[in-house]
Amino acid sequence: MKIGIADTMFARADMGGLAVKTIAEHNPKIKVERYTVPGIKDLPVAAKKLIEERHCDIVLAFGMAGKMPIDQQCAHEASLGIIAVQLLTNKHVLGVFVHEIEAKDDAELKEIMRDRTIKHSLNAISLIARPDSLTQNVGKAKRQGSDDAGYFALD
Amino acid sequence: MKIGIADTMFARADMGGLAVKTIAEHNPKIKVERYTVPGIKDLPVAAKKLIEERHCDIVLAFGMAGKMPIDQQCAHEASLGIIAVQLLTNKHVLGVFVHEIEAKDDAELKEIMRDRTIKHSLNAISLIARPDSLTQNVGKAKRQGSDDAGYFALD
Amino acid sequence: MKIGIADTMFARADMGGLAVKTIAEHNPKIKVERYTVPGIKDLPVAAKKLIEERHCDIVLAFGMAGKMPIDQQCAHEASLGIIAVQLLTNKHVLGVFVHEIEAKDDAELKEIMRDRTIKHSLNAISLIARPDSLTQNVGKAKRQGSDDAGYFALD
Amino acid sequence: MKIGIADTMFARADMGGLAVKTIAEHNPKIKVERYTVPGIKDLPVAAKKLIEERHCDIVLAFGMAGKMPIDQQCAHEASLGIIAVQLLTNKHVLGVFVHEIEAKDDAELKEIMRDRTIKHSLNAISLIARPDSLTQNVGKAKRQGSDDAGYFALD
Amino acid sequence: MKIGIADTMFARADMGGLAVKTIAEHNPKIKVERYTVPGIKDLPVAAKKLIEERHCDIVLAFGMAGKMPIDQQCAHEASLGIIAVQLLTNKHVLGVFVHEIEAKDDAELKEIMRDRTIKHSLNAISLIARPDSLTQNVGKAKRQGSDDAGYFALD
Repeated sequence: MKIGIADTMFARADMGGLAVKTIAEHNPKIKVERYTVPGIKDLPVAAKKLIEERHCDIVLAFGMAGKMPIDQQCAHEASLGIIAVQLLTNKHVLGVFVHEIEAKDDAELKEIMRDRTIKHSLNAISLIARPDSLTQNVGKAKRQGSDDAGYFALD
Repeated sequence: MKIGIADTMFARADMGGLAVKTIAEHNPKIKVERYTVPGIKDLPVAAKKLIEERHCDIVLAFGMAGKMPIDQQCAHEASLGIIAVQLLTNKHVLGVFVHEIEAKDDAELKEIMRDRTIKHSLNAISLIARPDSLTQNVGKAKRQGSDDAGYFALD
Repeated sequence: MKIGIADTMFARADMGGLAVKTIAEHNPKIKVERYTVPGIKDLPVAAKKLIEERHCDIVLAFGMAGKMPIDQQCAHEASLGIIAVQLLTNKHVLGVFVHEIEAKDDAELKEIMRDRTIKHSLNAISLIARPDSLTQNVGKAKRQGSDDAGYFALD
Repeated sequence: MKIGIADTMFARADMGGLAVKTIAEHNPKIKVERYTVPGIKDLPVAAKKLIEERHCDIVLAFGMAGKMPIDQQCAHEASLGIIAVQLLTNKHVLGVFVHEIEAKDDAELKEIMRDRTIKHSLNAISLIARPDSLTQNVGKAKRQGSDDAGYFALD
Repeated sequence: MKIGIADTMFARADMGGLAVKTIAEHNPKIKVERYTVPGIKDLPVAAKKLIEERHCDIVLAFGMAGKMPIDQQCAHEASLGIIAVQLLTNKHVLGVFVHEIEAKDDAELKEIMRDRTIKHSLNAISLIARPDSLTQNVGKAKRQGSDDAGYFALD
């Protein structure tokens, strides 16, 4: 099993590096391929190349969006590209995007990045291990980047 | 006949589970395949995999969008992806999305989720049974998640 | 020649039925295939299936958008899907969408739906009869759903 | 060499006709194929059919957007479709769109339409003649629909 | 190795020319192919033709967006097209877009254009030389068009 990690020079912290560490701690048998690009809009093709040229089974795409409206638009475009990659390859690409406007300061931004990176790294490990592995948590209001929200039964 | 159910850990209630129950009650001969992913943007590829790898004839894609603008954007991106899946496979994927901002509190949110899930599960059963089955209700202002709206004749 | 009609249970009136009637009155030799889906976002795949599985030469896709911002977004997504269907099939799919916010009351909404449905049904008949049939009206400010606007010469 | 002209009944003036005249005056050897559709969202498939079915080397797609927000959205959808056509065919489709809100009155609207139509017709002639023909004007702030803007050197 | 340069007549300065110069100074062995189009929405197909018809290994796509909302929308559409080109070719196309609203005057605009052009030209050289070349700068808050932002560790 091989997990691809696509990340950017633009981001203000090394989420991909933390993902490499997290994966190694949880399952050292999983191979990792890493690909760094300039910014968030370069991630879709990086993810596709990791799948098609480096034979990854799943990709984690780490991006950060700055504070300006144009940054939000870039993240939107990148997200659409990441969905397209998945439909072209039938592989998951988990978009792990952090928006600077989510946090009031760098300390909070760091916690969001840490939490989101670790949880999605574990999601990737689960998804390639068994495709039904996440069903035990369905509808449980799971959040990456913060505590989970509240959930309720539909009876 | 086989119905795929794609759902998320992000959602605050288990709509997919209610769909499984609804389908079993209405037609126990229909097989169900289930696939749970982290969030709404992961649903398009899940739907495509349910169709192409698990041979589903139709898919119900259950997603919930949170209260922030970024959540609305994610739902928009997921909806575009779901349309793309349908055009690539010529199969229906019914997007069953609930937005937290639709409801004033959790009690109302729960009712929306229940109603929308049940009605769209029945729509899926109808669509795979006979492609012309819904024409009897054309232009009847059918709503999922609330009572139907009013309709009128065009004479 | 065969015209496909895709329409929805969501719409508050039966535009597809009026289209069937209009086509029969103008050219009873044209065959009609009809496909009803739950809502506007289900129209793109319905149009594609009408073209590829039921061999329609052109499709009229009737949709209605409700009053909420989410409804406008759904119409936008459906429109993008309809454009994609056309590029994948090289056939016209005329999107005949009515937005509730276009009208001040149901009486006006009904007139918009009637006018737009009839005029686009005639456009479909013209387009499949002769691809150059609409050039006589080029730049004439033709409107569907209201009176035409004013036009002027470019000399 | 053959230039396709796609235009609409919706537009308030006949830009396609002016393009035919402009091309004939500048190079009478260039063949022209014309295709008129109802509105701006029908232009992408018209452009694709002009390229694939009528063998055009380049297409000019003339559209007009009305004054309402929905008109802006239609132009946006059409523009995305036109980009998709180009990527599917590896041919240029120059979108020549005029928005009513660009002009304060019909006299100004007419001047914009004239100027933009003529200049883009000449751009099309240049692009199919020699792919490097426009490089002499790179970074020169060329505008279609108004006077050029100011440009500066990057030293 | 060959770098494609796609640029526009619309831009108010010759970014493509500065890229040619920058590439020649850093690695004179790299070949350059240049393609100039009218505006930003014509860049995606230009990039695709540079890759598929002129065999470029990577493309720099230089575009400028004017001050009006419609200009922002054009840049958005072009960005989506550039992502699509990359997914269709598995090659990088670095979108080097400058928005007039980024700068308070032409002097600042010029500096943004210079800095962004030079840095992304170097990024292109790095990416085709070694795909892992940018990983040394991952998460370092690299910016093109301004000084880098601040970065922090995720421990």
